[in-house]
Parts: sequence; C-alpha cells; structure tokens
Amino acid sequence: MSSPRVAVVGATGAVGPVVLEVLAERGFPASEVVAFASARSAGSRVPFAGGKLEVRELHDDSFDGFDLALFSAGGSTSKRYAPEAVARGCVVVDKSSAFRMDAGVPLVVPEVNPEALDGHRGIVSNPNCSTIQLVAALKPLHDAAGLAHITVATYQAVSGTGASAVRELRDQSQALLAGEPAAPSVYPHQIAFNVLPHCDAFEGDSTTEETKLVNETHKILGDPGIPISATCVRVPVWRGHSEAVWIETREPLGAERARALLRDAPGVRVVDDPAASAYPLPSAAAGTDDVLVGRIRDDGSRRNGLSLFVVADNLRKGAATNGVQIAELLVGRGLVRVPDRAAA
Amino acid sequence: MSSPRVAVVGATGAVGPVVLEVLAERGFPASEVVAFASARSAGSRVPFAGGKLEVRELHDDSFDGFDLALFSAGGSTSKRYAPEAVARGCVVVDKSSAFRMDAGVPLVVPEVNPEALDGHRGIVSNPNCSTIQLVAALKPLHDAAGLAHITVATYQAVSGTGASAVRELRDQSQALLAGEPAAPSVYPHQIAFNVLPHCDAFEGDSTTEETKLVNETHKILGDPGIPISATCVRVPVWRGHSEAVWIETREPLGAERARALLRDAPGVRVVDDPAASAYPLPSAAAGTDDVLVGRIRDDGSRRNGLSLFVVADNLRKGAATNGVQIAELLVGRGLVRVPDRAAA
Repeated sequence: MSSPRVAVVGATGAVGPVVLEVLAERGFPASEVVAFASARSAGSRVPFAGGKLEVRELHDDSFDGFDLALFSAGGSTSKRYAPEAVARGCVVVDKSSAFRMDAGVPLVVPEVNPEALDGHRGIVSNPNCSTIQLVAALKPLHDAAGLAHITVATYQAVSGTGASAVRELRDQSQALLAGEPAAPSVYPHQIAFNVLPHCDAFEGDSTTEETKLVNETHKILGDPGIPISATCVRVPVWRGHSEAVWIETREPLGAERARALLRDAPGVRVVDDPAASAYPLPSAAAGTDDVLVGRIRDDGSRRNGLSLFVVADNLRKGAATNGVQIAELLVGRGLVRVPDRAAA
Repeated sequence: MSSPRVAVVGATGAVGPVVLEVLAERGFPASEVVAFASARSAGSRVPFAGGKLEVRELHDDSFDGFDLALFSAGGSTSKRYAPEAVARGCVVVDKSSAFRMDAGVPLVVPEVNPEALDGHRGIVSNPNCSTIQLVAALKPLHDAAGLAHITVATYQAVSGTGASAVRELRDQSQALLAGEPAAPSVYPHQIAFNVLPHCDAFEGDSTTEETKLVNETHKILGDPGIPISATCVRVPVWRGHSEAVWIETREPLGAERARALLRDAPGVRVVDDPAASAYPLPSAAAGTDDVLVGRIRDDGSRRNGLSLFVVADNLRKGAATNGVQIAELLVGRGLVRVPDRAAA
C-alpha cells in the first residue's frame, strides 16, 4: 500500500505546530507532509521532523493530490475548505466544532469508539479537548457499570483559546507582577491570577463549551440518555485542562475497582497516591499524550457515587495527538484511499 | 456600656493585618486595639486606622485586661492560648479549625446562624473560608426549598495558605516567565500556571479542606443530613476563592426564583448577566465583603437541580470580615462582658 500525502491545515496556530510535532514523533506513514495556512502566514516556515516546512497559502485546489487533510484552523476555515478537500479525494480529520454533531460525521476518540470510523463519508471530527479526556477516563467505567450521571467542573488552560490567549496570559502576568495594570483583549476580563467561569461563547445561560461537553460525550459514548451537567472555567494555566468529575453508575463499582479498570485502560495513566502528593497536574500532563486520572474516591453522598480528577494536555491528547491517532486508524484500516502514484 | 479592649492575635500573618483593616474600616467600637504575634514578629509595626501598632509578644498573661480576642494565628496557637484568654475573661473569636467542631463552640456566619452565638462559653469559631461563602449563598435557597444535595468544586487562592504561599506564587511566576525553573517549597508542586487538587493535608483519600467543607456546612446549617461532596483545588490566584456549586432542593425552586432570593440575601451580591460577560470573578471580589453569586442555572440533569458559581475574598468575608462581624454581634447583643474600667 502506498503512503498518503498529508495536508496540515492551520499549521501556524496553537494546534497545527503540535500536529506536525506529533506526526514526526510517531513516524506517521506519510509520503509527504505539507503545511497550509491563511495568506497572512504563507511563506513562513514551521518546524517538522528536524527540518522546516514552508507554509503554503490555502486555496480550493490546495488539496489536489492529497489523501488526508488534518484541519485545525477553526470552524469557518473548516466549513469553507473541508468539503473542498473531500471533493478532491481527501479524508479530512477536523479539529473544529463545525461538523461534530452532524449525523453522518464520526466523532472519534480512538480508545473509546474507533468503530465509528467505519461509516465515514470523508469527514471525521476530532472532539473538543475537554470532551476527549473526559470520555477517555469514563469509558472503562461506563463499560463496567453503566454511567447514570456525570457532573463536571473544568479548569481549562488558555492554549485552548489559541496562541493569542497564551500571549495575553504572559503579558498580563508580567504587567501585574510589575505593578502595572493588565488590559484584557482576548478574554473579557483579566485572566492572569484570576479564574473566569466562561469558556467559549454564551448561548443563553450556558456556554457553547458546556453544551459541547454534554452533546459530544453523548455522541461518543453512544448514549444520549446519560444526564450530564457541566460548568466550564478558564484558569491561568498554559497547557493542560483539568476536570473535577463526579459520576454515578447503574451498577455498584467502587473506587478500588475503578482504579484497577483505569490502570488497564488504553491512553490512561492513574496517578493516585495522595499520601505521596501524587495526583494529576497540568504541569505533569503538558507535553505527554496520557490522560491522567487520580483523586479516585467513593462518593458516599450518592448511591454508586464516585469522584475523580482528570487532566490531559489539551493541545496533544485534547487536539493534535487524538487527530493523528484517528489518521493512523484510518490509514491502518484502509479507510483512506491512496492511489499508486509511483506507477502513474 | 463601655467599649471592649480588643486583642488581635496573629497580627503579622495573612489574615491578621486584614482584621486590623476591617476593624478600622467598620469603626468597630473598641476602647483599644492591641496587636499580638509570636516572639519572632514582636516589636514590628503593623498599620491600623491610619497609624501603626507595635506588635507585642504573645504570653499567657497577654490577655489580662482584654475583653475580646480575635485569633488568626493557626490551630496550634489557638489551642495553646484561646483557653488562656477565656480564663482571663475574654471572649475569643477564633479563625483556626481548632474548636470549630466542638459541640460547645458556636460556628457562625452572621448572615446565616447568628442565633448560635447565644450559647457561647467563651470561644466562638469563625468557619473555614470556603465554607463561609458557600453557606452564605446557599442559606436563602435552603430556607426556601430545603437542600437535598450539594456538590462543590473549589478554585482556591494561595492567600488561603498564608503569606508564604503568596510569596511562592509571585516568585515562581517571575521565575517561569523568565524561563527559569520554579522550585516548590510551601506546596508540594509548582503552583504558578498550574492547579493542584490538594488543599490542606490529606487524611486518607480526602483532604481536611474537603472534610471541613462538609462538616462545617452541616453544623452551620444545622442539618447534618444534607449529602455533600467536595473536591478542593488550589489555583494560581492571589485572593478570592471560587466555587462551582450544584444543588438539589427538596421542593422545586428554579433559577429565576433562586436569583430573586439571592438578590435579597444579606451579604450576597448577584452578578449574573452572561450576555454582558458579567459573572463572579476573584478579581472583582478581592477587597470587598460581598459573596458574589452568578451563573445561576437550572440543572436539567437533576430533579430540582440548580447550579451556581460563588466567589468571595477569602481574607475578608472568608476570614477577617466574618470574624469582625461575629465580634460586632457579640458586643451588640451584650454577649461580651466589659467591666467599667473608668470607674475602677
């Protein structure tokens, strides 16, 4: 089988460079990797596999001759260009929220619902960062005992908003430490040394981030009946989303069995030794692909209640790595058509 | 009635200076205020009412001639000296956890359970910071509809740990922004640009902070039967604890009525206009005495479910102001015996 030609769209944003990093790290079987971005970034160079790629401007015909396109350039770019890429023969793995809830689009976390890829029609969606780590941690518990309720409070890093938010946290932190005021720009309020109960836009009294966490979890677990309540909060952390999670299960489970199940779960690393101050931390998750799970406790306030703390790198497992893992599955299972160009 | 002589114990810590600030701001009716601390701080000077107080070293006989002692020097100092102060005729308002759960000791949030003061035997406990703001926000809802369950995830500021933790956050933030490593000392892990699911010490799989939040809420609301589950998390914020709270009520309540009840609640300020990005923030709570409540939503995942976000200044309403309010009530209701010294 030939190796696919891969287009990385949004190569200069917060996630794109991590996609390139992860493709190289994992030795993704590409015959070629090409970086695309908007006209503004075209001509710049981005690191890849020890060298540099020149960034090309994105056009409708950019996708001619490519087999796989990894999009992480935001919803409007995906809406505009993903159908174009599909029309020209690509399978698209899309990080934006544009197509996630479309009935014909698989929404996939490879450790959780790889089977959903089978029915793809050209576009596969990569879930929201805060959803990926939640379902990766909860799937083994759901399989064992059935989830009857989920409550989540998030602690989300600024890199989830993008590169400009990372700069804003740095600039505001420096200003405030120097005794100067911190002007908000990306966020409506100061984010340095503060927390904002506001991720993404409000629609009524909830944010789209909160709605996504509920709807995407339902779709990925294939069970829209699980009641879920979420409050999403931005915190002054560069990288690594944290989640305080409470679940109730249909059958009794218990912290000890949950811990054992999670120790065997793919993509999960249990960090749970409170006496040794060992628990999941953004600083420990950053740069890794593991979903860290700890503070696993029986919640005696509920029948079959359990609480846990879940942390993952929002740019890696929450975005780039999950997308590359989807691409690996697509290629490995023959779900990407790669013409034999050498023979052409 | 004569005005009491007031001893402020722990005058050089994180809370003591705020106690002095709040006493002056509120024009507390003291005939004299004297600052005490350990030998190490004795002789230093602390601001009070536009001037300075010289800090005296704490001894057993320090309390002779005082009527009221406000302790915020930690549990071991309270255990050692509060009974001494009572023996010498003082009423003690104690910020430490030393006596909070003792059956004979009132644990008071003035807006919530002022009547508990009546039975005092010399010591009144000031609850833990994260408890005070929680019960202040929940009391009106409990009165109206009966609390059937509480779930809390906290976002706690470093000043709750003390002055050394404030310095640690500053030093680590400066180091990391300069590309240097951040050595942890007060906390077991880096706190700058990180979150730690660990407040206070672990006892088994929960922290004492989590246990306090449950037990103190039961005692203050006078209802040990309310099931409560808490996860406490330290965040890189100077001042202002935040809480994501979910409740279920026995009777239907609804977000709209809850909002109206909270608008009328003493000590509470509703900040809840998501469309205008108005919600509670640590940066807005810092320096004020209000408990800010917002993100008030019906939680459709539960019968009679409601979620809210609660923020208060942990050094003011969470500590100093609540203590001074207790002292005001004690004096106002004749629960502090003040001898007529002018006549002596």
